[in-house]
Amino acid sequence: MHFPEHINIESIIIQIKPRYAETDQGGVVHHSVYPVWFEIGRTELLRANGLAYKDLEKEGVFFVVSELHIRYRRGAYYDEELELETVCSKVTIGRVEHTYSLKRSKDKTIVAEGSTVLACLDKEGSVQRIPEFMKPQR
Amino acid sequence: MHFPEHINIESIIIQIKPRYAETDQGGVVHHSVYPVWFEIGRTELLRANGLAYKDLEKEGVFFVVSELHIRYRRGAYYDEELELETVCSKVTIGRVEHTYSLKRSKDKTIVAEGSTVLACLDKEGSVQRIPEFMKPQR
Amino acid sequence: MHFPEHINIESIIIQIKPRYAETDQGGVVHHSVYPVWFEIGRTELLRANGLAYKDLEKEGVFFVVSELHIRYRRGAYYDEELELETVCSKVTIGRVEHTYSLKRSKDKTIVAEGSTVLACLDKEGSVQRIPEFMKPQR
Amino acid sequence: MHFPEHINIESIIIQIKPRYAETDQGGVVHHSVYPVWFEIGRTELLRANGLAYKDLEKEGVFFVVSELHIRYRRGAYYDEELELETVCSKVTIGRVEHTYSLKRSKDKTIVAEGSTVLACLDKEGSVQRIPEFMKPQR
Repeated sequence: MHFPEHINIESIIIQIKPRYAETDQGGVVHHSVYPVWFEIGRTELLRANGLAYKDLEKEGVFFVVSELHIRYRRGAYYDEELELETVCSKVTIGRVEHTYSLKRSKDKTIVAEGSTVLACLDKEGSVQRIPEFMKPQR
Repeated sequence: MHFPEHINIESIIIQIKPRYAETDQGGVVHHSVYPVWFEIGRTELLRANGLAYKDLEKEGVFFVVSELHIRYRRGAYYDEELELETVCSKVTIGRVEHTYSLKRSKDKTIVAEGSTVLACLDKEGSVQRIPEFMKPQR
Repeated sequence: MHFPEHINIESIIIQIKPRYAETDQGGVVHHSVYPVWFEIGRTELLRANGLAYKDLEKEGVFFVVSELHIRYRRGAYYDEELELETVCSKVTIGRVEHTYSLKRSKDKTIVAEGSTVLACLDKEGSVQRIPEFMKPQR
Repeated sequence: MHFPEHINIESIIIQIKPRYAETDQGGVVHHSVYPVWFEIGRTELLRANGLAYKDLEKEGVFFVVSELHIRYRRGAYYDEELELETVCSKVTIGRVEHTYSLKRSKDKTIVAEGSTVLACLDKEGSVQRIPEFMKPQR
């Protein structure tokens, strides 16, 4: 497996279009869907740095969410265009922190903001150090 | 691992109460949730026969859905009481068939009917015979 | 609301990339996710014809799934590239039928095939005729 | 609609058994499922106080999550027995706060802890005061 030398891209914006199945009877996207979108944001940020998360797992590097925080500002509606900015805000020896900003594409109003902390585990579920090549060079 | 000698109980009724997160903006449970409920029905039917599906997986016996059919008769509503009858309708050397009937508890109107066909796989994902002890003695 | 005169495009292929949250501990996408993808296929087929489903709902035209059938051929894996072909196979006075074919993008092996039947409801949930402009001119 | 005079029960413990569909390929419950369980905890706490959330919605009282925080301590496994304690920790004129503690039933190890803040909306989605009868008498 070939991995990039360093992670250099620190943020990415992706498009999100809420699915019908993601709405609830309140007429908006259910609040449990946002962590799923955040995860897609992290995956795409990793990919922009030349890494597929599935390849990390094949190498025995698993990232699990150890903390999640979300502030919901407005409802997100079915089939509207949203943009999600994911920023890798901090990398330590054992944790990776991201922040998220979800906006309406048309007027940039903020729909939600959030953050996650990831821990790095091995195949057996024990905590391990984040691989050297994943640390950003700033 | 101890497994029962035979599977003798062929049907079971369980209670289902739709979660808020399972509804969509149409005001009813999203149609993709029914297969999740059917799976719970199968699991509980197995448990009634003395088997936990997780123990089967530990022994290298995996059941995967190879076919799914659902007829939706009426909408299912948030927090209403439903009952799901799961019947093991056929077991062959490599397939297990179930049928499902989902009703309102209060008036027994039918909400949906369905069926699944399961195939039996080993750890590597290859088709294997259904374990002898899983075949019903009729 | 402006609606197109007729629906002329009868099939569409969209790209699907399974999300991590869509997998289960068997290591493949959970079988209940496929109906969610099929729904996206229908939505995009409608959009290709100049219609957004959300606009139909605003006009009091609701489509609900009355029948679903899926044959699962192979597991779908996290983050692999899939393509979903959705075909509008039949439109009658009160029903719309679609068929689906889900394939691996790289080698076109079939992952799953399926079909749905939709019924057309009004705001109160009563069956209504499919709007004239939705009927294809063949 | 008859509502109770006051809300007096401040906490409740419910049983949770993770569904197969709730797991991911990492072999544990996906982290986006926990908010769904928390919501069930809130619903059952309300019900213990004599109120069904669906009846509140019928009266034009909608509660939406404005903030969510979760600390994930250990993985939750398919079909294991968990218990979720939900505590209504604070009620102000416009917000309801809950805290959550999710434990393994067998040894009471903590799987996750969390909190939510709910805002109260009317049918049009505007912020409204929490109904008088919902305020606890302490």
